[in-house]
Amino acid sequence: MGDTWATLGVDLHLETGGDGSRHGVRKGLTDALREAVRGGRLAPGTRLPSSRSLAADLGIARNTVADAYADLVAEGWLTARQGSGTRVAMGVPPGRAEPRARGRVVSPPVRPAPPRRTGGAPTYNLTPGSPDLASFPRAEWLKAARRALAAAPNSALGYADPRGRVELRTALAGYLARARGVHADPDRIVVTAGFVHALAVIGRVLRARGEREVTVESYGLDIHWNLLHRAGLRTVPLAFDALGTDVSGLGPGSAKAVLLTPAHQFPMGVPLHPDRRAAAVDWARREGGVIIEDDYDGEFRYDRQPVGALQGLDPEHVIYLGTASKSLAPGLRLGWMVLPSGLHAEVLAEKEAAGASCGALDQLTLAEFITSGAYDRHVRGARLRYRRRRDHLVEAVAGRAPDVRATGIAAGLHAVLQLPPGTERSIVQAANWERLAVQGLSGFRHPLAVTPREDALVVGYGTPAEHAWAGAVEALCRVLP
Amino acid sequence: MGDTWATLGVDLHLETGGDGSRHGVRKGLTDALREAVRGGRLAPGTRLPSSRSLAADLGIARNTVADAYADLVAEGWLTARQGSGTRVAMGVPPGRAEPRARGRVVSPPVRPAPPRRTGGAPTYNLTPGSPDLASFPRAEWLKAARRALAAAPNSALGYADPRGRVELRTALAGYLARARGVHADPDRIVVTAGFVHALAVIGRVLRARGEREVTVESYGLDIHWNLLHRAGLRTVPLAFDALGTDVSGLGPGSAKAVLLTPAHQFPMGVPLHPDRRAAAVDWARREGGVIIEDDYDGEFRYDRQPVGALQGLDPEHVIYLGTASKSLAPGLRLGWMVLPSGLHAEVLAEKEAAGASCGALDQLTLAEFITSGAYDRHVRGARLRYRRRRDHLVEAVAGRAPDVRATGIAAGLHAVLQLPPGTERSIVQAANWERLAVQGLSGFRHPLAVTPREDALVVGYGTPAEHAWAGAVEALCRVLP
Repeated sequence: MGDTWATLGVDLHLETGGDGSRHGVRKGLTDALREAVRGGRLAPGTRLPSSRSLAADLGIARNTVADAYADLVAEGWLTARQGSGTRVAMGVPPGRAEPRARGRVVSPPVRPAPPRRTGGAPTYNLTPGSPDLASFPRAEWLKAARRALAAAPNSALGYADPRGRVELRTALAGYLARARGVHADPDRIVVTAGFVHALAVIGRVLRARGEREVTVESYGLDIHWNLLHRAGLRTVPLAFDALGTDVSGLGPGSAKAVLLTPAHQFPMGVPLHPDRRAAAVDWARREGGVIIEDDYDGEFRYDRQPVGALQGLDPEHVIYLGTASKSLAPGLRLGWMVLPSGLHAEVLAEKEAAGASCGALDQLTLAEFITSGAYDRHVRGARLRYRRRRDHLVEAVAGRAPDVRATGIAAGLHAVLQLPPGTERSIVQAANWERLAVQGLSGFRHPLAVTPREDALVVGYGTPAEHAWAGAVEALCRVLP
Repeated sequence: MGDTWATLGVDLHLETGGDGSRHGVRKGLTDALREAVRGGRLAPGTRLPSSRSLAADLGIARNTVADAYADLVAEGWLTARQGSGTRVAMGVPPGRAEPRARGRVVSPPVRPAPPRRTGGAPTYNLTPGSPDLASFPRAEWLKAARRALAAAPNSALGYADPRGRVELRTALAGYLARARGVHADPDRIVVTAGFVHALAVIGRVLRARGEREVTVESYGLDIHWNLLHRAGLRTVPLAFDALGTDVSGLGPGSAKAVLLTPAHQFPMGVPLHPDRRAAAVDWARREGGVIIEDDYDGEFRYDRQPVGALQGLDPEHVIYLGTASKSLAPGLRLGWMVLPSGLHAEVLAEKEAAGASCGALDQLTLAEFITSGAYDRHVRGARLRYRRRRDHLVEAVAGRAPDVRATGIAAGLHAVLQLPPGTERSIVQAANWERLAVQGLSGFRHPLAVTPREDALVVGYGTPAEHAWAGAVEALCRVLP
């Protein structure tokens, strides 16, 4: 190994010579190691030297080497095993990542589940559900964390209020009232570890009330339906038509709870028609039902002011669910519920029974991020970037694929591309061969949906990093008819 | 209000003049407002000026005022209500806090539940379960957060691996093997939102396997027993004697799972006898049982090296549960499980069904905190401070209350003070009158325990801030016979 490492060491040394900063050295080392693996100079299974000895060879800090190893483990190039050290991952295909994508990780399409792979990771990722992670405001977030930690009382570090920190609930109440028209008293807000945590808790509360099913939309995410199934609830879909989800299916005989995405149906991309918004609320009042409002991307409307939250129409019959996963990053695992008074105690008890609550420091940081105005600034900036991407996507598709039509309103982080009948499956397959991860509409259709099938792609234009955007759209256009 | 605020403004101005730093101004403002409420100059219900206008009055940054308000809301002096602004809390008793405690919050005894109050918050808090929150390494933590965020790949901000970040699982595997003798492969570790999250998930897995009860210890925390009950499991206690928990109660007929605190029984403070450690593992092997090891304070042993984790004896029959709640702070909501291979898949599935996972940034920060050595440094420092406190407590009690005997080993964050028979209840009551929060052993006794009752106090010497320690011990000695 000695020689190998001597050589590699020299290469590294040359590559990392440019920028003396710790971060620069780390990046140079990470890139050099990644290249060595990609190029085959480090064979799969090869055991790497300990961070201590490599650091000594290279005359750099041990933590820098450890950080570089951790990056590459996180990216899948290396594996770390207690007892057997750090090794080159088995089965890393050469040319797995584009040189242009070096130092970047193609963010895995975790929500919803990734398409079946044709081997290796995709080069481009247009699956919906994720914002552009590369544009997460790291510096601003860290500043907010510093201010929040400096201002935090010691009690903030102690055992937590199950509702979440009062600072965050107070900040959210102000923001949601201002930006989404939500009637939000801090005492009615419960902070959760993202949307799925909130939905899991609500599902268990409904089951504990004796409910056996929940009404859902014809199109949505199977992970949400599965979460409800795990809570012991069947999901029964409403029909879908040109005016959005058809709530006339809600009646005396239907389930007592309905899960809706009123502002921007996921994934179809249309808002719930105003008459139907009113009809849904009327149903809830008449039948003592509850509407679970998934406001996952309400911040992102590009043609005009976003339509307000349904919750504003009747806070006592709507559970409002919001999340930082689209506006900031899913990795924060921060979401919030605004609860009707009649559900507050039960939801809190169920949340406590599940034992999970969010770290206080992230909560205080988000509170500071919101109250300092950084949140609004970030959302405005993201809105501009995403709008440009959407316009670019729609233009490119219109120019290159006349038979393909983008539908849905100009909003959110994804677009629906209507395809010629019978072509969806082959196009998704062709995209995967092009190492482009993209999903067909059929993957978002409820198994019991009666709505006529359509062939379409659900394109997440938020997902790629800025540098990968143009290539992703180009790859998409190549596979469209 | 104008005059009031002019006056208050001047006072504030004088008070905050000493230190120009933002933090100094914030603290000065917070103290001045707290004084104004305590002294009655601001009556309960009084609406405070908006942070904007007060900031203008005082010529300071608006955020500084907002931070000060948030502090006082968190401390309970003020209330913030959407629509009605910030007001002085109703029923704030004058003299609620000692001047010496000014700017500090008496951390609420949340685990376990607080003793019945005689009105107002306690001045001193010796309830067990919390480390000294004032000694949380804020600066070091922030440094680690900065390094972790700089090194984090973008994918770390995306949807999460349900096991937790690989960086943290790798760091924990190394630390637990080194410091606790745990057999820990990063792939067998699952990061949780603290101990209760882990226990709730495990309880549901056991219930899903058809189990109906879990064996526990005669003494422990009712919140843990209740968590298991909520999962549909009865809890049946083992006997307790001079050698610790009597595991001879484990047999073919007993429940398939047992919850133990082998390193330092909570709250009795004795380690599980070596023969009984072996016997428990033998039982698990013989009957196909599983031991749930609650290693809540394994880092803190003062007389000699801590006894290793039971998990090291048989990783396939022990679920090891650790937490950062005692070594760092409960507010982080970070814990970890090390799982037998046979339980890994079920536990992950159950955790995902509950929808909750931890924020990636806190996980990456803790990983960096551990790998950089800051964790070991902090634990060593805390060990010294707690040891001094324990010694001081034992000496003070020996000198002032000859009839009271401290039992249990020199370890952890709490001591057990054996009281003359029949005196526990009256002493706890007397302590509450002295505004000293302390708990009797009876509050930790399982309802079905058959072990002879003892009168004792469970004194958490980790809980008070350094400045409050001497006063807390003095108050305690005043109420001992």
